[in-house]
Amino acid sequence: MRSLLETVQITKSAARALAKLDHAARNSGLLAIAEAISEHNDQILEANAQDVENAVAANLATALIGRLQLTPSKVKAMAAGVKDVARLSDPIGIRQIHRELDTNLVLERITCPLGVLGVIFEARPDAVTQIAALAIKSGNGVLLKGGSEAVLSCEAIAKIISGALQTSQISPEVVQLLTTRAETMAILQMDRHIDLIIPRGSNDFVRYIQANTNIPVLGHADGICHLYVDQTVDIDQAVLITVDSKTQYPSACNSIETLLVHRAIAPQFLAKVIPALKIKNVEIRGCSETLTLCPDLNAANDADWSTEYCDLILAIKVVDSLDAAIIHINMFGSKHTEAIATTNLDAVETFSSDVDAAGIFHNCSTRFADGFRYGFGAEVGISTQKMPPRGPVGLEGLVTYKYHLKGEGQIVADYSGSVPKSFTHRDL
Amino acid sequence: MRSLLETVQITKSAARALAKLDHAARNSGLLAIAEAISEHNDQILEANAQDVENAVAANLATALIGRLQLTPSKVKAMAAGVKDVARLSDPIGIRQIHRELDTNLVLERITCPLGVLGVIFEARPDAVTQIAALAIKSGNGVLLKGGSEAVLSCEAIAKIISGALQTSQISPEVVQLLTTRAETMAILQMDRHIDLIIPRGSNDFVRYIQANTNIPVLGHADGICHLYVDQTVDIDQAVLITVDSKTQYPSACNSIETLLVHRAIAPQFLAKVIPALKIKNVEIRGCSETLTLCPDLNAANDADWSTEYCDLILAIKVVDSLDAAIIHINMFGSKHTEAIATTNLDAVETFSSDVDAAGIFHNCSTRFADGFRYGFGAEVGISTQKMPPRGPVGLEGLVTYKYHLKGEGQIVADYSGSVPKSFTHRDL
Repeated sequence: MRSLLETVQITKSAARALAKLDHAARNSGLLAIAEAISEHNDQILEANAQDVENAVAANLATALIGRLQLTPSKVKAMAAGVKDVARLSDPIGIRQIHRELDTNLVLERITCPLGVLGVIFEARPDAVTQIAALAIKSGNGVLLKGGSEAVLSCEAIAKIISGALQTSQISPEVVQLLTTRAETMAILQMDRHIDLIIPRGSNDFVRYIQANTNIPVLGHADGICHLYVDQTVDIDQAVLITVDSKTQYPSACNSIETLLVHRAIAPQFLAKVIPALKIKNVEIRGCSETLTLCPDLNAANDADWSTEYCDLILAIKVVDSLDAAIIHINMFGSKHTEAIATTNLDAVETFSSDVDAAGIFHNCSTRFADGFRYGFGAEVGISTQKMPPRGPVGLEGLVTYKYHLKGEGQIVADYSGSVPKSFTHRDL
Repeated sequence: MRSLLETVQITKSAARALAKLDHAARNSGLLAIAEAISEHNDQILEANAQDVENAVAANLATALIGRLQLTPSKVKAMAAGVKDVARLSDPIGIRQIHRELDTNLVLERITCPLGVLGVIFEARPDAVTQIAALAIKSGNGVLLKGGSEAVLSCEAIAKIISGALQTSQISPEVVQLLTTRAETMAILQMDRHIDLIIPRGSNDFVRYIQANTNIPVLGHADGICHLYVDQTVDIDQAVLITVDSKTQYPSACNSIETLLVHRAIAPQFLAKVIPALKIKNVEIRGCSETLTLCPDLNAANDADWSTEYCDLILAIKVVDSLDAAIIHINMFGSKHTEAIATTNLDAVETFSSDVDAAGIFHNCSTRFADGFRYGFGAEVGISTQKMPPRGPVGLEGLVTYKYHLKGEGQIVADYSGSVPKSFTHRDL
């Protein structure tokens, strides 16, 4: 029985071999996986049925069981998703800089895989194929840890992936399934061997991971997004945007938690938006000024401005000005996605430059903040850090680059001293 | 007297105003600084003379006093350096993505400043103008903390910068000088207000900063670089590269610490390289096999392979193969810059893909790993992290980006459900 560290090292070396395969070879591994999933869908469904039975017996939450349960059409979608990844363009080997520093001294900056990824997620066994596909596409090895309630499903899927890779040029060792919490804790400490951790799960879960590893973490804990409705605005349009941003998928990180309304438009706008939200069963919590205008609402308290409800609840605050809205957003927002509804382009400009967030939206729903909707073809996470990669991150987030400098004996001494050679710095 | 937190908040808001100025306005602020430095060079030199006098009285190390001491020509170079930054192209407002998601729903990704930088450096008062110039160029505010031995020089320079900015459209509050260690410690905790820390100093200093802040840190603690001399090689060329990589500036992070030599070429190569290194006063520490070939060398012990000497000392190890060299480098290297000397292009390919470092050099000196030599026009640091920005980092490292999505009322509900609208995802 090999140790976890040995497994990680084997994954790393398998990933190094994977990185040398060309795009066609990586893609044919993906197509083999997609085919194997379709062919062995019964094995996946059988294992999953057992997981679901255990979950029911253990009295797990219905929502969790819903995410856990696979159906024939979900398994079909898993296979289709892997094929979609195969169709994306190759993220590695892209030359970003090509520059002559001097005659026959040429610098290139070329994208390459990060190495080994650690992806830790809750429930949703269908995530296994998607994550494995993205890792293989980008030339990375991956350690996958699913939720304990999905362990049989994950194991069945991992076995199918492994079998499919055995028929390809890719070593099955590039995809490893971890099954215990102890292994998760151990990999968080392996900052010499693992290059990126991607946590997918609740806010607390992500915060815990961030606080307990020195490995870079791609993801976000909170998604506290706002919509600000300015004084000059198309009210009906702003109502539609509010309802969509709150209700289209309330547990998503890009849903809004607080609606900010300019005082000058508050009476007219609130009169329209509140009934529209109520029809969708949204509980509204208003600031004192909102309550003056609409006395039958619940009152918001200070904690509401910094709460991500993940639910059909919306806080509303009336503000004096665009600046007051920006100050509120920069104080309470999580730098994810912030929207303004207005017909005043000067206000848009100020909002765009002064609000500190990955996404600045004008007259559209915050729910568009998503890698697929942005046209990235995949989303490996949404980052609320300020350093790139920021916002919805596609395959770009799974690669880094190396500088390659090729010469024919050049030394720096010749470019310094009293009669230094000069650099040409000519882009090729 | 305002508190440090107030100062940081004022800097942030001044930086926000700076970010809205166009490139010409930011540059004319830089030119005002350059002019003021030339005009008031006597004030700088006077303050510096006092710092040097104090340093001598305090018996500080000669090397440190050398870095501390300014001369009229160094002050001239400071002014010229600021003008050089003005000549660089604008790093902010660059559109990286421009994509129609659907009719009149347009996504842009545009570079913008990070916000507020914290730059902590030792000695070298001339760094103040360079850092201030790079921050202003990139639309950032900056908190500068120099070494305590340079405090009078730094204060004089900061006062001149402030005076120059008062004649420009830029608020002098964008550049703040901190003068106490307590302030340094305090800003490391301000992860809600400061966006990037750039430490410049000894390895221990950088390691300390990295371990004591949650703010992203741009920089590197160690620079353990290798040159591997392969079995098929132009020996004379490899000797020149070895000598340059070790001796051209031994305390630089991109100097080599260990020379790896393929067994098949070791007798001939060592016979030439060792005398060449000895002429340059390099102390050589050899592995047992090196000692067998050259018995009068000192012996290397295990600690040598992971030591950054910052001095005219070089460890030499004979290896069995290219693979053995790669394993050694990936074990002991700091992912900075790794070089191979060979005429075998297959070996270059394997070395390039399997060595895990920001820079992979072929037949040239590791000393080329530098932002200026790469043609970036400036270097804000060299990162040995694997996530970008990696390697020598120019102004690119001081900016991030925002996604701007502009619509006319689009909501996500229309793009889902049973008859979803589809995205066009057309690059504009």
